[in-house]
Amino acid sequence: MNSEEKTLVEIIDGNNQIDLAKYINYVSAPQAGAIATFSGTTRDTFEGKTVVELRYEAYVSMAIKNLKSICSAARSSWDLHSIAVAHRLGIVPVGETSVFVVVSATHRADALDACKFLIDELKASVPIWKKEVYSDGEVWKENPEFLERRLELGKDVGCCRRKIETAAHDKKSCCKPKVKVEEAID
Amino acid sequence: MNSEEKTLVEIIDGNNQIDLAKYINYVSAPQAGAIATFSGTTRDTFEGKTVVELRYEAYVSMAIKNLKSICSAARSSWDLHSIAVAHRLGIVPVGETSVFVVVSATHRADALDACKFLIDELKASVPIWKKEVYSDGEVWKENPEFLERRLELGKDVGCCRRKIETAAHDKKSCCKPKVKVEEAID
Repeated sequence: MNSEEKTLVEIIDGNNQIDLAKYINYVSAPQAGAIATFSGTTRDTFEGKTVVELRYEAYVSMAIKNLKSICSAARSSWDLHSIAVAHRLGIVPVGETSVFVVVSATHRADALDACKFLIDELKASVPIWKKEVYSDGEVWKENPEFLERRLELGKDVGCCRRKIETAAHDKKSCCKPKVKVEEAID
Repeated sequence: MNSEEKTLVEIIDGNNQIDLAKYINYVSAPQAGAIATFSGTTRDTFEGKTVVELRYEAYVSMAIKNLKSICSAARSSWDLHSIAVAHRLGIVPVGETSVFVVVSATHRADALDACKFLIDELKASVPIWKKEVYSDGEVWKENPEFLERRLELGKDVGCCRRKIETAAHDKKSCCKPKVKVEEAID
């Protein structure tokens, strides 16, 4: 266990599973009485269609930047100890975790509320796209929240809920080279 | 991974650590796109005092009954797949988990909201008590929510928020034999 407050953002490429224990251990600390986590996993159906796998692509540098901004915003809203956010790219088969958020805090309400905020903001503002591969075809999907946020940007009504910096982006950029990026923010 | 909807409530005695991976695996299923967890861990300070360890005692049969009621209430409020709740009794040293709640659901909002509800209700209505052992003494503690709920009971204003059955209980009952209890509700 580490007593230092830390933030870790990782975009993981390849076929590596997300090691939940590693991130839970990362945020554990003698000062933290509460740890909240959220795992997003590939499920086997979407609107009645059989899903075989999901494939994720990201605009990696922007995704890392946005994730760091979201983590900073969470720290400014709640009293947190440590945060870790990991997102897989590439193929994620049914039942495996594509995204993992874990937050530690002295008190449970801070950990729980910040965890929910982080995953909601990740879905709404981080340029990571998923392709749903069905048994009879495939389709690129965007999260409804992400589209909504982009529509807000288009209307110039402001995107900065809870001071999150969101940048307009070009979906074509998602084919940038995908690399394993590990960033620890002290 | 299991496709069946399940609920597991465990009160764990002795010096056995809570095996987080076991419970996460228990709720994992191809239908579940979201898993939310909460871990309560012993922290090293409380109101400026150095905490050495916590010791938990429970009115076990009532705790199991209440936990099952809370799980049922969560199912009636949210669309959930599986639920597991584990609570340790006895000594829990600094940094170790005393309580773990994990919920799987198709969608993330259900998993996150139900997880928060479950831990809040557990703290408010389940007869599990903790003794904080400081470097210079020790004291039995009750959660503020638990006291509040008991005051409500005393005023006969009803305890059945979200249909949770809460029974008035005698704190002296906490010295009942502590045994490992494992209950799977199909």
